[in-house]
Amino acid sequence: MTDTRAIIIDTDPGQDDAIALLLALASPELDVLGVTAVAGNVPLSLTERNARKICELAGKPQTRVFAGAERPLTRTLVTAEYVHGKTGLDGPDLPEPTMPLESQFGPDFIIDTVRAHPAGHVTLCPLGPLTNIALALIKAPDIAPKIREIVLMGGGFFEGGNVTPTAEFNIYVDPEAAHTVFTSGVPIVVAPLDVTHKALTTQARIDALRAKKTPVCDAAAKLIDFFERFDEDKYGTDGGPLHDPCVIAYLLRPDLFTGRDCHVAIETGSPLTLGMTVIDWWGVTGEPANAHVLGDIDAAGFFDLITERLATL
Amino acid sequence: MTDTRAIIIDTDPGQDDAIALLLALASPELDVLGVTAVAGNVPLSLTERNARKICELAGKPQTRVFAGAERPLTRTLVTAEYVHGKTGLDGPDLPEPTMPLESQFGPDFIIDTVRAHPAGHVTLCPLGPLTNIALALIKAPDIAPKIREIVLMGGGFFEGGNVTPTAEFNIYVDPEAAHTVFTSGVPIVVAPLDVTHKALTTQARIDALRAKKTPVCDAAAKLIDFFERFDEDKYGTDGGPLHDPCVIAYLLRPDLFTGRDCHVAIETGSPLTLGMTVIDWWGVTGEPANAHVLGDIDAAGFFDLITERLATL
Amino acid sequence: MTDTRAIIIDTDPGQDDAIALLLALASPELDVLGVTAVAGNVPLSLTERNARKICELAGKPQTRVFAGAERPLTRTLVTAEYVHGKTGLDGPDLPEPTMPLESQFGPDFIIDTVRAHPAGHVTLCPLGPLTNIALALIKAPDIAPKIREIVLMGGGFFEGGNVTPTAEFNIYVDPEAAHTVFTSGVPIVVAPLDVTHKALTTQARIDALRAKKTPVCDAAAKLIDFFERFDEDKYGTDGGPLHDPCVIAYLLRPDLFTGRDCHVAIETGSPLTLGMTVIDWWGVTGEPANAHVLGDIDAAGFFDLITERLATL
Amino acid sequence: MTDTRAIIIDTDPGQDDAIALLLALASPELDVLGVTAVAGNVPLSLTERNARKICELAGKPQTRVFAGAERPLTRTLVTAEYVHGKTGLDGPDLPEPTMPLESQFGPDFIIDTVRAHPAGHVTLCPLGPLTNIALALIKAPDIAPKIREIVLMGGGFFEGGNVTPTAEFNIYVDPEAAHTVFTSGVPIVVAPLDVTHKALTTQARIDALRAKKTPVCDAAAKLIDFFERFDEDKYGTDGGPLHDPCVIAYLLRPDLFTGRDCHVAIETGSPLTLGMTVIDWWGVTGEPANAHVLGDIDAAGFFDLITERLATL
Repeated sequence: MTDTRAIIIDTDPGQDDAIALLLALASPELDVLGVTAVAGNVPLSLTERNARKICELAGKPQTRVFAGAERPLTRTLVTAEYVHGKTGLDGPDLPEPTMPLESQFGPDFIIDTVRAHPAGHVTLCPLGPLTNIALALIKAPDIAPKIREIVLMGGGFFEGGNVTPTAEFNIYVDPEAAHTVFTSGVPIVVAPLDVTHKALTTQARIDALRAKKTPVCDAAAKLIDFFERFDEDKYGTDGGPLHDPCVIAYLLRPDLFTGRDCHVAIETGSPLTLGMTVIDWWGVTGEPANAHVLGDIDAAGFFDLITERLATL
Repeated sequence: MTDTRAIIIDTDPGQDDAIALLLALASPELDVLGVTAVAGNVPLSLTERNARKICELAGKPQTRVFAGAERPLTRTLVTAEYVHGKTGLDGPDLPEPTMPLESQFGPDFIIDTVRAHPAGHVTLCPLGPLTNIALALIKAPDIAPKIREIVLMGGGFFEGGNVTPTAEFNIYVDPEAAHTVFTSGVPIVVAPLDVTHKALTTQARIDALRAKKTPVCDAAAKLIDFFERFDEDKYGTDGGPLHDPCVIAYLLRPDLFTGRDCHVAIETGSPLTLGMTVIDWWGVTGEPANAHVLGDIDAAGFFDLITERLATL
Repeated sequence: MTDTRAIIIDTDPGQDDAIALLLALASPELDVLGVTAVAGNVPLSLTERNARKICELAGKPQTRVFAGAERPLTRTLVTAEYVHGKTGLDGPDLPEPTMPLESQFGPDFIIDTVRAHPAGHVTLCPLGPLTNIALALIKAPDIAPKIREIVLMGGGFFEGGNVTPTAEFNIYVDPEAAHTVFTSGVPIVVAPLDVTHKALTTQARIDALRAKKTPVCDAAAKLIDFFERFDEDKYGTDGGPLHDPCVIAYLLRPDLFTGRDCHVAIETGSPLTLGMTVIDWWGVTGEPANAHVLGDIDAAGFFDLITERLATL
Repeated sequence: MTDTRAIIIDTDPGQDDAIALLLALASPELDVLGVTAVAGNVPLSLTERNARKICELAGKPQTRVFAGAERPLTRTLVTAEYVHGKTGLDGPDLPEPTMPLESQFGPDFIIDTVRAHPAGHVTLCPLGPLTNIALALIKAPDIAPKIREIVLMGGGFFEGGNVTPTAEFNIYVDPEAAHTVFTSGVPIVVAPLDVTHKALTTQARIDALRAKKTPVCDAAAKLIDFFERFDEDKYGTDGGPLHDPCVIAYLLRPDLFTGRDCHVAIETGSPLTLGMTVIDWWGVTGEPANAHVLGDIDAAGFFDLITERLATL
């Protein structure tokens, strides 16, 4: 395909990661060069398996899936089974995957793939802690200027955090990795909680998905059903935020989003604000922008896109 | 007056401090025991003079005004002439005050006053950096359980900060003082930027004030005219936030506000997030609430209150 | 007295504070304008009483003793009864004092006294946490250029700390106060653990003191006997370090000490190294010196001085 | 060889690294499985070349040399040409190496090697920043319990630091890597500045080396001549500290050293004390020991060992 966009999805499924994977695998505009799993929502042994489960659900068992880091750069792994359930994919009853796990280490696959393509070809799509991306950049600084873009879900500003008052889970789990990524010079697009909390899985939206009456849409609806409970209870909203698919939706339909070029710094030193993405939305620091931070989303268009695409699988 | 509420206003005028002072002095429900000036928006030599100017503008030259701290507990003073102008009260042409400055040190006046009244009698209303309040609590820890309440303007959460991405000016200037106040055990009500940024000085609201055609309302309109420019330019809104009067309005009309009991911690260690009020709005830390944090305001009712009361001076 | 040096001793007795007080009160070269007590080794209610006990033991009940801060600027008070015993003066059996406590707040006395004398006249001698000194400097920044010198016991560098691996007790208890003092611009002389750990109360030295057979020397020997136990056990040395008298000895006999002009910064942000005095002994930071840091002592001369002077009381 | 100790030397030569390499390659008790270069004293492109130069100087061109990390985990590389000269090996005139650089990434070699041997077989000897070791432990946490020991040069306590008042160069360059290593659970032996500053390259010791009249000893003497200048000038001593060979000497002759089991924490959060090894020498923190920290050295025996061994090459 000549006009497709080549991406590597780095992920810790997670129900919302799963929807993101399905959306990417369902979209002809995207060429998923590989999927690298990372420890995050649940341990690596589950996230790599979950990634394969979803590829098989999508009917794409030929997708290459790699295991990456099983721990953050400097800290003990924190997981979020209280959100995602014991398996990370609680909700539908998905069969154990039969497709193989690639033997290469995820960050090494990222390095080789970026190097194997022309500069500006490969986009990285991190949906979890940034450990794998940081490890690739540390081992091979030469890839930084060759990466087209890193489009990631993480952080939050006006929304604050979700795991502490100031920190969003993906960044909180490995703030040092996030710091390495945000100081790498690679063009970055951030989908923070400020956007994802506007992408609520209302009952009507789940119903629309289920109405497609396909196995994939049914499984997706079950994933969302399970996943949204935590945030519905916490925030008292109709539906929970559907975080990770925002990354894939942005690649497919950037017009659904608005944002702003900002400087983003990661708090790595303070126990109180650890893992905060300090986003200079109002430009008060004088620091140059190092990321395009999304701030708003056309949520209806976003869910229409998901529903339409997943129905094609 | 038997049913009045006894308050001490601690302030660094500042145009919005001035409106707050006028509102308090115009309100028979409040007994302003004294006004203590602190360095903040402009240096102390200006804030104490500005406080007296406003008392005279209000026709209350008998109000006792005290000079307090001219510097923060541990840091070099940061001021905000870029917002408030060189004098701190740029806008109207107010005469130099002729009423005297009391000789006692502001924090000592606070201590003596709290001790001189029954427990639960005196409310402190800090509108600037919390240096004076902290100094009183450090010198006389015995007053903490006797203070009825500290109702303060400061901090921000979903709004972020105004001087850095995460810090609001009052807290940023003296974060150590803020830490001392927030760990004092005194009941605290916080009017953060989240509230004050909903109290915008729209043209219609300034016009309503000016329409009263009194010297005080005219001066108030001029103060607001000058003051709002900075935030209008920054945020692109019709009008700027009228911060400090929220404190006095809360005392007069708590029904105009909604809020939530939260734990609030002050960042004093990280250069990146220095002076942030880390407000546990969603209760994720497990820390017990130490403050009632206001989150919403009936802005129309708020401006009606100001206009009505200032017209009586 | 025309040639005496006017000092204010700020102290939290503490056995070694007591020896320092006795040494000062026994020395005609020094004019002890007053003693200000601070919370530290034990709570303020004990330190102010202990200060008076020692003045009476010295036969100087006319000495003015003031109570200062009962808590640090921002933190909860940490005390050291495990070193000093329950009373802070465990060891000898000293009678309750009958001399009065002055009513003025210690830091206010410091301010008034510095202002009442010509610039360069008054030397401050802090032997405990620096809360009182900081409070004076915060309330009255005008006194900074008038203080002749602050000669203090605190910190450590090559010796590390005594309460944590990196922090010495006096600084650790109120690091923010220490920061305020070390950034005040007042000339500072520091007697850190590096010096005091070379001033060991060996048995021979205690015997020499006791051999004077005076009530004061006997009480001093008993104070030292009790106090040295903690550090003897910890370090396995013959005798413990006699910290605070180094300050007074430096005033009397600067020739007993050698040192170096250094930049000293106080760690206030890191939980791991909180309260450390970061002394740039080798001049690697490029920061200008803000203190003269003592590094070595003629311990024999030091103990001779103490013994000789205490015998005169 | 059945009784040899299998080691991997991780290094950033550096003159003292060079002496350490020579000492290891000259010692039949050690089986140098490989040498991994890391960025530190000079950039990686120099350190890997310097490592090969030294292997050739030692007459051991069959030694496997690997390039590792060219940057720290999260920070910009800091180098020390002001100590080591532009090449890192300034002093003797060594020919460009002709032996090849292995193609594998240094940390991957470490992982494969540890996994290929029985648990408890391989000892790691880091002489520079700990980036390579951390990367191996992050990618392959399973190797931690298989590593026999990490014997490293780094940190300092009573000596303070050498690059800042509190931080030694190796730890300062990559404090996050050091944190990962010190929290890995692997048995660690630390040769800090406290030891190495007792291993001074006096003129007599250099003369003894040169008196061997071998090309290797002559080159070693020239390396030391150049290297010691910086610290001689700084500290005013006869000779400079010979840091890195202490690691190899400890493996050969542990009887030359004394030390203590301590808890060691790495400061990663504070700008002021960044990279400090907080060594709980006196056991005041209650934290369990995670390292054996060397504190003293028989310097004469140490230099005898170096001279004797280098003469055999």
